Amino acid sequence: MQLYIGNKNYSSWSMRPWVLMTHFGLPFEEALVRFDSFDPGSRFKTVVGALAPTGKVPLLVEGDLIVWDSLAIAETLAERFPQHPLWPADPAARARARSLCAEMHSGFGALRNACPMNIEASLPEVGAQVLREQPAVAADLARLQTMWTEALAASGGPFLFGDFGIVDAYYAPVVARLRSYALPVSPAVQAYMDRIWASPGVAAWVAQALVERDFLGFEEPYRRAPAA
Amino acid sequence: MQLYIGNKNYSSWSMRPWVLMTHFGLPFEEALVRFDSFDPGSRFKTVVGALAPTGKVPLLVEGDLIVWDSLAIAETLAERFPQHPLWPADPAARARARSLCAEMHSGFGALRNACPMNIEASLPEVGAQVLREQPAVAADLARLQTMWTEALAASGGPFLFGDFGIVDAYYAPVVARLRSYALPVSPAVQAYMDRIWASPGVAAWVAQALVERDFLGFEEPYRRAPAA
Ligand SMILES: N[C@@H](CCC(=O)N[C@@H](CS)C(=O)NCC(=O)O)C(=O)O
Ligand SMILES: N[C@@H](CCC(=O)N[C@@H](CS)C(=O)NCC(=O)O)C(=O)O
Repeated sequence: MQLYIGNKNYSSWSMRPWVLMTHFGLPFEEALVRFDSFDPGSRFKTVVGALAPTGKVPLLVEGDLIVWDSLAIAETLAERFPQHPLWPADPAARARARSLCAEMHSGFGALRNACPMNIEASLPEVGAQVLREQPAVAADLARLQTMWTEALAASGGPFLFGDFGIVDAYYAPVVARLRSYALPVSPAVQAYMDRIWASPGVAAWVAQALVERDFLGFEEPYRRAPAA
Repeated sequence: MQLYIGNKNYSSWSMRPWVLMTHFGLPFEEALVRFDSFDPGSRFKTVVGALAPTGKVPLLVEGDLIVWDSLAIAETLAERFPQHPLWPADPAARARARSLCAEMHSGFGALRNACPMNIEASLPEVGAQVLREQPAVAADLARLQTMWTEALAASGGPFLFGDFGIVDAYYAPVVARLRSYALPVSPAVQAYMDRIWASPGVAAWVAQALVERDFLGFEEPYRRAPAA
């Protein structure tokens, strides 16, 4: 299987299946397609657009099997590797887990817009300002705080549904945002975020993001390009 | 099982699981919660918010099982009723089907914004104007045209993956928009849209939407309230 992804520092949707597959040791070859202008003739669009109609990453490819969305990839992997507990075993917990992933997939627009993933960046002043000025971001943060607190209480932790699974991989890029922008959370949520950060799939992705050193201006509303 | 939905004329996300369950004869009780202001203290938010953290419909409820998103509901039903071919049986087709649903779930924002679902409305002039003025809507339409043409060619029809399934239910509200706003499509796509419209789950939803006669101003950017 090949997993097409974008830049590790920036590509939040790519991070989800990569972290999941790495965490569970699922076999895959990584194909990193560097972010660029995303213009129709760009290298990114040429490579990715030849494989998937949306021209977006992540993309899972194996022969004639092409899956072009992070959530569809997660379901496909869960089906394909039933020996791994990618979803919670209990049906009611699994339904909740799926709801949380779907909520992420179509939601949290304010947080995603205002605080783009940027693993190497530390932008606490930006985070504080965004939170003061954008009530919708504060609402997204409040929802995360409640969601994670309730899930951890219901499962007993250490991850949202007990053991690490798709939902945790799905929220890992959100953890990266909360860290970079230093958005305030409760101690229990902070401890969950620390566990996410230390988990093997996430730690591997973050380590590789940090050595990437590929500053892309169009992904950087808040930082200046480093001196050459 | 109870399925909470919004107004049949307007609630595109509710339409998906209702159509799916009705098409396959899956047993459920309908709980229709009328759309209102969606203010925190509104009846809609009080009823729906007591069940699901997002305060949105659709919602599938059965005892302690609560599923609060249309895509999570579809996966839950597929798992729960394996005797019905909700997803295509072939793994590669199933992966494509999941990708198409995920693409809908997080995409087509321009079309959704400019052309809100309104089953009883006929607004061809609005559709023509939107298409002239908003290239992003034209791009969404072009993508649908390509997607459906390719899927129908690959499967041989009559539905996107052969027999009617989750993907068709997922795109049924899109068909409703293309009809209301008379957006132009090829004859093959028009024929697919007609088959969707005639399929039993969709036909039942549409029939009930048409007798609803509940004009909601905030859902109506283009029409005047009927004279009382
Ligand atoms: N809903 C998609 C979103 C994928 C997505 O937006 N990917 C971004 C990178 S993180 C991309 O490829 N952008 C290229 C573009 O927008 O043209 C998923 O869950 O996979
Ligand atoms: N991603 C959700 C979207 C649900 C949604 O937006 N539902 C609308 C009705 S179609 C709603 O409940 N809106 C109430 C609100 O926005 O407060 C799903 O797929 O179920």
